[in-house]
Amino acid sequence: MKSPVRVVITGAAGQICYSLLFRIASGEMLGQDQPVILQLLEITPAMKVLDAVAMELNDCAYPLLHEIITTDDPVVAFKDANVALMVGAKPRGPGMERADLLKDNGQIFSSLGKVINEVADENIRICVVGNPANTNAYILAKNAPKLNQRNITALTRLDHNRAIYQVAEKSGNRIADVTKMTIWGNHSTTQVPDLSHSNIGAEAATSIIDNDWTENDFIPTVAKRGGAVIAARGSSSAASAANGIIDHMHDWVLGTAKGDWVSMAVPSDGSYGVTEGLIFSYPVTCENGDYTIVQGLEISDFIQGKMKESEAELIEERDTCSDLF
Amino acid sequence: MKSPVRVVITGAAGQICYSLLFRIASGEMLGQDQPVILQLLEITPAMKVLDAVAMELNDCAYPLLHEIITTDDPVVAFKDANVALMVGAKPRGPGMERADLLKDNGQIFSSLGKVINEVADENIRICVVGNPANTNAYILAKNAPKLNQRNITALTRLDHNRAIYQVAEKSGNRIADVTKMTIWGNHSTTQVPDLSHSNIGAEAATSIIDNDWTENDFIPTVAKRGGAVIAARGSSSAASAANGIIDHMHDWVLGTAKGDWVSMAVPSDGSYGVTEGLIFSYPVTCENGDYTIVQGLEISDFIQGKMKESEAELIEERDTCSDLF
Repeated sequence: MKSPVRVVITGAAGQICYSLLFRIASGEMLGQDQPVILQLLEITPAMKVLDAVAMELNDCAYPLLHEIITTDDPVVAFKDANVALMVGAKPRGPGMERADLLKDNGQIFSSLGKVINEVADENIRICVVGNPANTNAYILAKNAPKLNQRNITALTRLDHNRAIYQVAEKSGNRIADVTKMTIWGNHSTTQVPDLSHSNIGAEAATSIIDNDWTENDFIPTVAKRGGAVIAARGSSSAASAANGIIDHMHDWVLGTAKGDWVSMAVPSDGSYGVTEGLIFSYPVTCENGDYTIVQGLEISDFIQGKMKESEAELIEERDTCSDLF
Repeated sequence: MKSPVRVVITGAAGQICYSLLFRIASGEMLGQDQPVILQLLEITPAMKVLDAVAMELNDCAYPLLHEIITTDDPVVAFKDANVALMVGAKPRGPGMERADLLKDNGQIFSSLGKVINEVADENIRICVVGNPANTNAYILAKNAPKLNQRNITALTRLDHNRAIYQVAEKSGNRIADVTKMTIWGNHSTTQVPDLSHSNIGAEAATSIIDNDWTENDFIPTVAKRGGAVIAARGSSSAASAANGIIDHMHDWVLGTAKGDWVSMAVPSDGSYGVTEGLIFSYPVTCENGDYTIVQGLEISDFIQGKMKESEAELIEERDTCSDLF
């Protein structure tokens, strides 16, 4: 049997993790032959709830779950970790300025970055979920220079999946028929859902779906879907966010389907003219546990303009936190 | 591709289902090659929350999820259904007598039984989860004479999994090493967790674990674990209950592991001297989509006495609701 993978999850007693942990332990994220050790980090006041989550994980008798570590100490949580799902972040409180939110979360991710740099596996695969996810990942990366920087990513797979659903629903096709969806940029309302390279079955999506819907409905619907879920549910997406995390890490480790790609926010290498180092969502294919940014796609002026806006937002976020790296 | 299976879930906007639906849609319950149609039933006041759950299911872009039906009409929910997970039930309110709870839920399951009898696939596989699960299943069965009565079951897999964990933890072994666990009887505090036929690796559990612990710790810990989770978590088991449901239906449809068995509450055929027709938890093996009660196990006087107590409780529950069938 394979040796267990150490998976750290932060914010482990929260709602997203209640939907996430059980699916990791069942083998959905890393495969049915891969034992895991769950290293669960929470803030001190949430430890009692976290202990109850651990009781329920035990009560599932998962053969792949070799150990559960619960802790409020990041040094313990990240020790020798191979995978980190950074779900915890400070939410925006009433009357709080966006810049304050950025700085507060920047502080958290800068100090976690320093810890990870010291105690984790240097090839640790990181997926940042807590918002502002891309900039939190950027700050983490700058504070963790020993780590393989390629492996510090942020989640846009939920947006990607939302975009696929919208196109399947609009065109009356099955989910499995919609391929090559792309989310560019920041995981925020400036994100750029792009179906211009997508196929529906064997046909180009653009030959089936009219451009007016794409520009005026599709893009804002996907970009603002998080808000729509909050309005309907009374709280933010949890199970669907957890599912995006499972998909992100599953495909990164186990590979993307042939003839398709997924969206991941990864450190820009300058592809498509994006400022190097920014954590920017790109279409990627995955194989042998690594990702490759899809190259050579033709980008329309309309999409290019939106990508620039999203890039500008990421630069502004970065500069707001420049004292943290 | 296989034709989709129609899976009804009642109480679909509740906490257990929020942990359950996403795992069914991902293929964990019926297999990665089995499309599903989710037919989600709720009471009218919960329809808004249910619609939000459906939004999030869509936002996962599950290739196997062919359709979602949300309704407050049981006739719509159970139409042509192949699998039913009966999660919804009325909880015990403050100052409510147990007999009143039995009767209120009996009413619900008797009227649902009549609907299922008319509109569902007659070979529908039913797993009752809402408490008192065994007696609710009994009442449902009596009101649905056209259905294959063998296929009306109740959930004790959560108890089974809890028992496995306790034995693995106590003996310092892995979950996968503990086999042939049994839960006998009612899914209540009279349930009988029985490790007397269990193995730990190649050895009999009884040769490793002392009898005093088994009788005085193991049995009450497993039987009262639901209460311990409520005390720790502030609400009842949700994700672990959902996991038990997944396991119950997965193994029933896709088979149990060779050399092992699981626990399911099924209509008694008189095996082990239990009154025929009672929905009683037994050790079962599953193959070709059907279950077989494990025969010929030697039962100690101690366990036999406890099984009789649990049987007596089931008879009393049945008789309290005798006006409903």
